[in-house]
This record gives sequence, structure tokens and C-alpha cells, in this order.
Amino acid sequence: MNANIKIFDTTLRDGTQGEGVSLSVEDKIKIALKLDALGVHYIEGGNPGSNSKDIEFFERAKHIKLNNAKFVAFGSTRRKDTDVETDAGLKRIIDCGMPVATLVGKAWDFHVHTALQTSLEENLAMIYDSFKFLKSKGLETIYDAEHFFDGYKNNPEYALACLKKAEDAGADWIVLCDTNGGTLPGEIYDIVSHVCSIMTTPIGIHTHNDCELAVANSLTAIQAGARQVQGTMNGYGERCGNANLCSIIPNLQLKLNYPCLTEPQLQSLTSVARFVSEIANVHMPVNQPYVGVAAFAHKGGIHVSAIMKDSRTYEHIKPELVGNKQRVLVSELAGQSNLMFKAQELNINLNMEQAQTKEIIDRIKAMEHQGYQFEGADASLELLLRQASGEIEEMFTLESFKISVEKIASQAVVSEAIIKIKVHGETVYTVAEGNGPVNALDNALRKALIAYYPSIQNMHLSDYKVRVIDDKVATAGKVRVLIESSDFNNTWSTVGVSENIFEASWLALIDSIRYALIGQTQIKHESEKQKERFGLVNH
Amino acid sequence: MNANIKIFDTTLRDGTQGEGVSLSVEDKIKIALKLDALGVHYIEGGNPGSNSKDIEFFERAKHIKLNNAKFVAFGSTRRKDTDVETDAGLKRIIDCGMPVATLVGKAWDFHVHTALQTSLEENLAMIYDSFKFLKSKGLETIYDAEHFFDGYKNNPEYALACLKKAEDAGADWIVLCDTNGGTLPGEIYDIVSHVCSIMTTPIGIHTHNDCELAVANSLTAIQAGARQVQGTMNGYGERCGNANLCSIIPNLQLKLNYPCLTEPQLQSLTSVARFVSEIANVHMPVNQPYVGVAAFAHKGGIHVSAIMKDSRTYEHIKPELVGNKQRVLVSELAGQSNLMFKAQELNINLNMEQAQTKEIIDRIKAMEHQGYQFEGADASLELLLRQASGEIEEMFTLESFKISVEKIASQAVVSEAIIKIKVHGETVYTVAEGNGPVNALDNALRKALIAYYPSIQNMHLSDYKVRVIDDKVATAGKVRVLIESSDFNNTWSTVGVSENIFEASWLALIDSIRYALIGQTQIKHESEKQKERFGLVNH
Repeated sequence: MNANIKIFDTTLRDGTQGEGVSLSVEDKIKIALKLDALGVHYIEGGNPGSNSKDIEFFERAKHIKLNNAKFVAFGSTRRKDTDVETDAGLKRIIDCGMPVATLVGKAWDFHVHTALQTSLEENLAMIYDSFKFLKSKGLETIYDAEHFFDGYKNNPEYALACLKKAEDAGADWIVLCDTNGGTLPGEIYDIVSHVCSIMTTPIGIHTHNDCELAVANSLTAIQAGARQVQGTMNGYGERCGNANLCSIIPNLQLKLNYPCLTEPQLQSLTSVARFVSEIANVHMPVNQPYVGVAAFAHKGGIHVSAIMKDSRTYEHIKPELVGNKQRVLVSELAGQSNLMFKAQELNINLNMEQAQTKEIIDRIKAMEHQGYQFEGADASLELLLRQASGEIEEMFTLESFKISVEKIASQAVVSEAIIKIKVHGETVYTVAEGNGPVNALDNALRKALIAYYPSIQNMHLSDYKVRVIDDKVATAGKVRVLIESSDFNNTWSTVGVSENIFEASWLALIDSIRYALIGQTQIKHESEKQKERFGLVNH
Repeated sequence: MNANIKIFDTTLRDGTQGEGVSLSVEDKIKIALKLDALGVHYIEGGNPGSNSKDIEFFERAKHIKLNNAKFVAFGSTRRKDTDVETDAGLKRIIDCGMPVATLVGKAWDFHVHTALQTSLEENLAMIYDSFKFLKSKGLETIYDAEHFFDGYKNNPEYALACLKKAEDAGADWIVLCDTNGGTLPGEIYDIVSHVCSIMTTPIGIHTHNDCELAVANSLTAIQAGARQVQGTMNGYGERCGNANLCSIIPNLQLKLNYPCLTEPQLQSLTSVARFVSEIANVHMPVNQPYVGVAAFAHKGGIHVSAIMKDSRTYEHIKPELVGNKQRVLVSELAGQSNLMFKAQELNINLNMEQAQTKEIIDRIKAMEHQGYQFEGADASLELLLRQASGEIEEMFTLESFKISVEKIASQAVVSEAIIKIKVHGETVYTVAEGNGPVNALDNALRKALIAYYPSIQNMHLSDYKVRVIDDKVATAGKVRVLIESSDFNNTWSTVGVSENIFEASWLALIDSIRYALIGQTQIKHESEKQKERFGLVNH
């Protein structure tokens, strides 16, 4: 067995530099909790010196007790020609109260001259002073040596002098960054080996994917002696992204025998990767290694027949090791044990022996096959399970809806929705306009329900996401709509799938409202169950 | 300078095994022509033994004169216990008339036993007989040694014996395949080095991306002595895909000094990659290395300010080398020289000195910024250029459209469109139903135009694709609609972008119809210009 490797996740910091990746504070908290459960060792949460959102994140992070990971705040070495005591960025790092700090600092002489526009000596002082200062405050510290490989190739003495300054100041880790992603594995191996031979501080690696080599570069650095690997979930990050931890972790653990996570943690990798993709609302390519929907999917006839004989014929690992599954033809399978686990978590009584439970599993399988994904839509899943356990009933049924979109000459498009629903035995017929057809539908539905369920005025749609599942709407393609809703206390997500975007939206919308309403119903139901248990109800 | 490397493209064969990739014969022809212009050396077009679509493709390929590449037909070594002369698959390869054949054959003893269910000796005979036979017919031949690396690790003597049989039979190339994608770069290097040291036949490499290492594995095999690399555009292929030629080629040529393409060919890489993505209708991830829209995009404030000082600070190569471009903030730029080239190709007179030309370039820039992409929509681009050169005028204008989608209880959704347009000064008002709202819109528009332009009855929509550009429709997200239309002779593609899917569809639809109609108009226009030129028209 090789040395243990520390996994440093920067999805919440470097990952958010990726095009199309934008996370709210709430999103970041949700992801951090999943990363902790996955078993990563460091979670870099943001840069408290750069924006108020990250300060708010750390404010909330202070009150979170992590089981496996440590929270990390990110910043830069002190500004040129200033004193550490008065440096605003360093002050914010200390003030945010996290146990670990990463400071990025220049290691390429060209950058010191061109980007920083200071002297080589001043940059060395900036590194030394900053680490000395943070160590004096009791923090664990990490030096991200920016552009280290380009710097080393240009001026090895200077690049190494930067590392030495951090080491002298007491930095706990020195991380070699291939910031532009242009370095090849052979160079990485030689340079990391050399650095490891002359430094006593443990070394880490931070790569980018500009040459589609970030995973290879991370592995080769570990083989050359690095003991920490920095990356992001699904490889999110600026330009072509950061090194993808979802590929690095299984490669290290299953192929190269470097332990990173426990076996059960590794088995949660696929579900965490998909959760992050849903929350970030970045489409996960079906062919993403290890965790993608097609990573173990078999289409070719010869392959399928060989797989039937022995799955090793066309699979490099057992997909279950990373929580993924083999797909042959169209056999989508909702994991039964996952469902039971979820039900327990929600305190829902599902008995595997009951026909009811089998029915709900079959229904979820059928829905997944249609394109549903519940990773990002817990509220819809909870509704399905509660319905299966007989806890809730329909609150209203659809009679009809009609949506119209009208454009007159060069004016803006006008959207209107008409709905007819049955609530408590009565037919309600409403019409509303909206900022887009789905908003019109939401407005018409609220108008119809508010007299019966006044509490819905406290909730609102906080996000709406739509994804074309197979990119072909006209030719029987499907869309998946994900709706996030909030009230004063909670946020919940629901999902709908259909060939028609409005039907999918309708399905997600009614789940959202039903979920908001069962809170009340649920309490009543629970108290009735209590009464039953204690013999207070006569049948 | 290192040895020249031969690029073997299998997008049209192995690439089509990818989930979501489905190419018509017409699509395959279009892609083959682009690949030839890109400068790849081999284009594997399909398996004439497996399906009639591939036979039709080769039938058409016979009449295509390629400038750089050779067409390759793919098949398997002969069936077990049969004679080569009567083997249907080998017969089809010979009959399809291509100059090169790839035969896949087993090289892993486990597979011979488990999948093929024959003896190790018979498999060796199958390899020998098949290559001897194809060489006797004058074909250039390539042995794809399936699962070679797994086979070598399990039984090196047998794996090498398979290669030796192909060499003895006269195979021109021996390609080592990591079919399951589970091999790591270190192993690849050692095994390829050993094979190269004992074989005289030139060696190739064929890898899959199951560990996110296909590019690294291809490069390391070349460094170990391989001289041909097999892969696909954008890495399409079964499970996690094949090795991505769009990353391998620039890595080999720009980083490792192995020449593959000419400089101008390499500069067309981005445009060919995007063309293939559009035709295959597989979303290209924005962060795809080298050719993705975000590959050289800079978001972070520090990065942008450094980039302004010197682009080498955060770019590992000049993006122009692969035909991509730097993006800072929102500066989308339609390449002026590309436009002039396109205009010349279409015989459109655009003069860079004219205000008109500047205007059209500004308009295209603005459209690209909105989310338009013209790589897959040549007809829309041609219309813009012809309009700018004053060759065509509006045929009709929109007064209004109204689309409605209605759902009653559990019945299917009903879609209807009403349009009002002005044609030749007259207002026309029509209504039609459709199989979906866009189909209804198309039907209503045709109903309105047919009296004025009877020839539109000859054309039809052959494909409709929609893509959510930034995955957020509700929050001012945009959709791009791509429509493919055909008549008896031609196929053309048009594009529309809007926040509203129906407006985007409308825009693509009217371009499609206008393009169909200018054929006629255009001829008239040309003949008038001719008359003018020869003084036959008096002003």
C-alpha cells in the first residue's frame, strides 16, 4: 500500500471561476456538506477578501461541524510594499475564523515583473512575511505556488527560492500549480521529483486541464512524491477547468493503490458528482469518466453479448466501486437500498415486503427511464415516498391548462396561462399573465389555490432550470425542469419531465406547491398517528 | 523535429457508438469532407459488414476524391472455423472498394475463451488468414489488436504472438488498443516501448477515456515509438469516449514537436470540431480543451488584468494556432478574414472598404454575442451576406404570431399556431395545428405562403434541434434552434436565437424558407447583373 493522499477540494472557490458556474451561499453550504460526507480532507470555501458572498459563506461555515474535512479560506500573499499587519486580505482570512488558509503567491519571475510589477526580492518577502504572520495566528497554511512549472522552466533558482521562503516561514504544505494548464506529464514528473528531493515540507499538486492532461498530471505528480492533490468536482474551473477529482480519486485508489477515501465513501462518488452538477446547473456530459450516466453503458451488439458472458470483457472496473452502474440496453435501476435509506432518513415507513413498496420502486424506475433525476429534487422524491406510504393524498387535480405565447410585430412576446383545476370537489378556472409562459402558469395556479390554501402566499419560486435531456425536442426529445422554491424557513427542489416543456413545468410546479402544503398536513397526520399509537382513536 | 505522425480518424465508425451520437449518411459525408480538409490521414467510414447505412456511405464515398486522406473500411478477422474466401464480412470489405481496411482481432486470451469461445490457435489462424487474404487483394491493411494491453498484462506471449501473426501475413500497421480504457500511462509507455523494440511493422495506438487518460495514453505511446494515433473528433465514442483528436493533435504538434498537419490545417481545428459537434448534435462542453468556447476565456479579475499586460500570463498557447480565440469579458469577434473567405466562396461581392460590409460584420458580431453560431448554419450566414451585398430583399414580414398549447386532463397536449404576415403588400392570416407548437408554426407559415411561392411545397423540415445555451430559460437564458431543411436536390441549415423558444424557431424557420426561395430569385438576379454588365439594361 502506498502513502495516504490528502484530497483538497476547491469546487467552491476555483470551480466557480468556470464559465456557467454560479453558486449561491445556500448552494455552497449544500455542496460543502456533501463533500464532507464524501470524505475529502480540505474544502476551500472561497476568498473572504474578494467578495461579500464568500464572507457570508464563512460566517455560516463557522457553525457547521464537519466530520471529515477542514474548511479552508483562500487569499493572496500580502500586497507589495505593505505591512502584513495592515493587509486587508490577510486580515479577512484571520477574521473569517477558518482553521486552514491557502495563500497564492507568485513563483514565476516573468509574472513578478509583468503582472505584479515588483522586484523579485519583494515577492520573496511577500511570501515569507505572509506565512510567518498566519502561522503566528495559529493557522494551518498552504502555499499555492502559482505558475510554478512555467516559473521553474524559465528560472529554476527563483522558483525554488519562492518555495524555500514559504518553507522557512513555516508553511505546512507547498502546492505546485500548473496555473495555465500547459505542462505535460513528463515535465511534471521530473520537476516534482526534484522538488520533493530538496524540500522537507510536504508537496501538493494543482493542475488545469488546458491540454486535457490535468488528471494524468495529477497522478504523475503523486507518483513523483506529492502527497496532496487539489481539484474540483467534475473538473469545474476557469477556461478548460481544474483537475477532476471524480477521476483522480478512483484512479489513485483503485488503480495505483494510494488510499484516499473509505470504500463506502468512494461508493458515494457518483451520487455526489451528480448532486454538484445539479446544484451548479452544469450539464454533466453523459460520457464523463467513472461517474457519467454512460460511463458503463453498452451500446454495441458485440459488447453487450460479451458483457452478458462476463462484465470484465468491456469494463475496466466494477461500476459499483464508485457508486455507478452498468447499463445494458435500457435497464435503468433505482437503487432499492438507496430508497430504503432515504425513507428511513425521512422517517417514512416503507416495508420491502409490501406490494406498495414494490410499486413505488417500479414507478421510480419507470420515471428514471423517462429522464427523471432525483439527485437535485429531494422534495419530489419525498412526495413519492410519502404517497407510497399512504401518508398524503392529492390536494387538487388538473382538468386542463392552456398556455399562449403571442408576438405582435416587433413588440415583446406576451405570455398567458389559463387553468382549470378541481380542489375540494370544486372546479376553479383562472387566467393570468406572466413574465414568460411558465411564470404565467405559476400565477394562474396560485390564483386558483390561494382561497383554499392561504399559506401558499408565503412561498415563491426561487429558481427555474430547464435542460433538454437529449437535445432533440422536435423528434420526441424530452426536457427536464427543476424548480427551487422557498418560504421563510426552507428551500426545496422539485422536478418534472415531459416531451412538452409546459407539461414538465406543470409537474414540477405542482410538486413544489404540494410539498409546501404537506408540512401542515404532515403534522396533523403525525399527531393522528400518535393518537392511534396510544389508543386515543377508535376505529 | 520528431517523426511524422499519421492521424487516423474513426469519428464515423467508433465515434457513432457514443451515447447520443447518431449520424445519417448525409451527415457522414459532410463530416468526411471536413476531416479531409483538416488533413487527417485516414477516415474510417464504417463497417460495411454490420449495416446497410455504412454500405450506402461507402457507395457514395467511391465517388468522392479526397485531397489528403484515405477512406478506411472496418471489419473483423474472419469468423472462427470458416474459410476467408466465404467470409461475408471480408467479402463486404473488398466489395466496398475502399483502399484501406482495418480488421479488429482478439489479442487477449481471456476474450478468445470468453467472448469468441474458440481456441487460442484458431484465433491466431483467423488473424493470419484474414490479413493474407486482404493483402492478396491489394489493400492497405491495419490490425486493431483489441484489448492488447489487458491481454499483454494477462499473457504477454500470446498477445505478442497475435501481433506477430499479423506481421507475418503482411499487415501494414499494427495498432495496440486499450479497448476498456483502463490502462495507465506508465504501463502504456513500458508496453509500447517493448512492442516497438521487437516488431518491424509500424505501430499505432487506440485508446479510450474511461480513466480520463486517453489523451495522455496516446501521447505516451507516441513517445514510446508509435507512429499512428487513432481517435475521434471531440472524443466521441462508447462509454467515456475514444481518445480526443482535437486535443491530441495540438499536443503532439505544438508541445512535443511531432508534425501531424500543416499550420493552416491546424488553424481550422476549432471550426471543424464545432462543425462535427453541430452535425452530431452533441453539445460541445464550453470548457473543451483547445477548441471549446471557454478554452481561452478569462473571467477572473486578476487574470483579465494580467492578460491585458501580456497574454502569456494566463494562456499556454496562442489560441489562433488552433483557430480559437481569446475571450475577455464579452468580446465575441466574428473573424473578418473568415467572412471574406466565405463570401468569396459563395461568389458574393463584399468590399471591406464599404460601410455596408462593416455593418454586416458588426451585425454578425452582435449576433454571436447573443448566442448565434454559424458553423452549423451555413444557409443563415449566406442569407446575411447576400442581404448585405444587396442581392436579396425581404419576401414577407411578420405582423404577429400566436402559439397555444392546451392540455385537457390526461389527454395528449394539443398545439396550434396562428400567424399574420404581409406578403407582396397583402396581409395573410392563417391557423394550423401541429405535432408540437413548432410544427404548428411551420404549417401555418406554409399555408400563408404557398399561394405566393408554390415551390415551397417541394421543401420540408428534415431536422429540428434546440439547445438551451446557458441552461437557464427563466432567468433570461437563451435557446438556439437549428433547423435542417431539404428539397429534391439540397439540404440546408438555418439558425435562430431568442429567450423565447418560439421566437427562435420562427427566426430559423423563415431563414429556411427564404433560403429555399432565393435559389429562383438569385438566378433572376444573376441574369440581371449579366445583362447590366453587357449593357443590356438601361437605367
